[in-house]
Amino acid sequence: MSQALKLYTWGTPNGFKVSIFLEFLGLKYDAIPVDISKNESKSDWFVKLNPNGRIPTIEDPNFSKGGDSGLVLSQTGAILQYLADTYDKEHKFSYPYGTEEYYKTLEYLVFQVSENGPIQGQANHFILYAPEKVPYGINRYSNDVKRIYGVYEDILSRNKANDSKYLVGDRYTVADFALFGWAVALRVLDIDIHQWPLLGKWHDALFALPQVQKGIRAVPPKWLAEQEKQK
Amino acid sequence: MSQALKLYTWGTPNGFKVSIFLEFLGLKYDAIPVDISKNESKSDWFVKLNPNGRIPTIEDPNFSKGGDSGLVLSQTGAILQYLADTYDKEHKFSYPYGTEEYYKTLEYLVFQVSENGPIQGQANHFILYAPEKVPYGINRYSNDVKRIYGVYEDILSRNKANDSKYLVGDRYTVADFALFGWAVALRVLDIDIHQWPLLGKWHDALFALPQVQKGIRAVPPKWLAEQEKQK
Repeated sequence: MSQALKLYTWGTPNGFKVSIFLEFLGLKYDAIPVDISKNESKSDWFVKLNPNGRIPTIEDPNFSKGGDSGLVLSQTGAILQYLADTYDKEHKFSYPYGTEEYYKTLEYLVFQVSENGPIQGQANHFILYAPEKVPYGINRYSNDVKRIYGVYEDILSRNKANDSKYLVGDRYTVADFALFGWAVALRVLDIDIHQWPLLGKWHDALFALPQVQKGIRAVPPKWLAEQEKQK
Repeated sequence: MSQALKLYTWGTPNGFKVSIFLEFLGLKYDAIPVDISKNESKSDWFVKLNPNGRIPTIEDPNFSKGGDSGLVLSQTGAILQYLADTYDKEHKFSYPYGTEEYYKTLEYLVFQVSENGPIQGQANHFILYAPEKVPYGINRYSNDVKRIYGVYEDILSRNKANDSKYLVGDRYTVADFALFGWAVALRVLDIDIHQWPLLGKWHDALFALPQVQKGIRAVPPKWLAEQEKQK
């Protein structure tokens, strides 16, 4: 590939799960900060790229179509799948199209974007951001976040053949990278991921990798900036 | 194909979006009711199939892998994609793998499963099912449901080349079927989809199709059963 991708992003779980995967793929990309605290993702120029007005969005100038080129894509579930399809032809982080592992990866990726992400996002809202204290919401989403990580613990436990190191088979896939984005952010809720032993090991192994450390800093999340200030 | 698929399902938006697509594909399937009101989806036998304990789940005995056969798959975003990949080789309801339309379909499918579905699900909870009245939750999710349908109206409006009939290009895709499952269920929240003119037409066109009418009855939703009792 020749030209750098553009990644419109911010220091949030959905943002850095894409930058982390870009680092694993070794792709050149420009991280373009879209400050969601200033509602930049709802501005006209951004909504043209993503009607839903949320980061992340990518632009890949290398994508060719007819006489034209360039692909604009949003939704991490779609972006991660696109990147794996396009830039992981050797299947270091994916499985061949049409295989059982390919669809199991997709199942757990969808589980992440449709349940782990949205529910943990609601927990963040009620616990950290809501302008009033709503105990019903706090309880509902705290409990469901814990249930969901319990499901992931179960999924890892079923992969004994690979020492429960990966969600699917014998390698990291977009299902792992997507989950990691939110798992690493559990700390802002004061939830210790090590209460699920397999997930704790899984988290620590990924957290130690240089691609993760670099990807997470594409636009550093607040908690990371604060952690580093304290050092 | 030879053997019927198994569809573990219930009369909910996530359930019938799959049965509707199976009807469009003309596939044989056995709908196996899993009564979520009795927590059957949390029972041991079901959790073995889907660690997340939620319908729908499919079993396709025709899937071949090595010497073995059969695929068990959950998460509607994964199930619909699998069915399109496997059983729509002529691309009546999909676009070829790797094309721009393929990824735009995936983007809007993921938008449905990661935002429309979860948020409307929370609205249903706070408005219809929560054991206490929580105004903050009711307002938060009612407003966000309306915002999200506004985004879909915008997406349809961008497809003027095809009279705004479809979310992507010139045909129905899994992005439409997934959204339809939840759009048709807006009536339980007394939200009239016709307040978004393009979505209203889109809904009515799909609702009139025999495949939709049949698919929605695989396990009929409560509101449909009540509607038919009143006739």
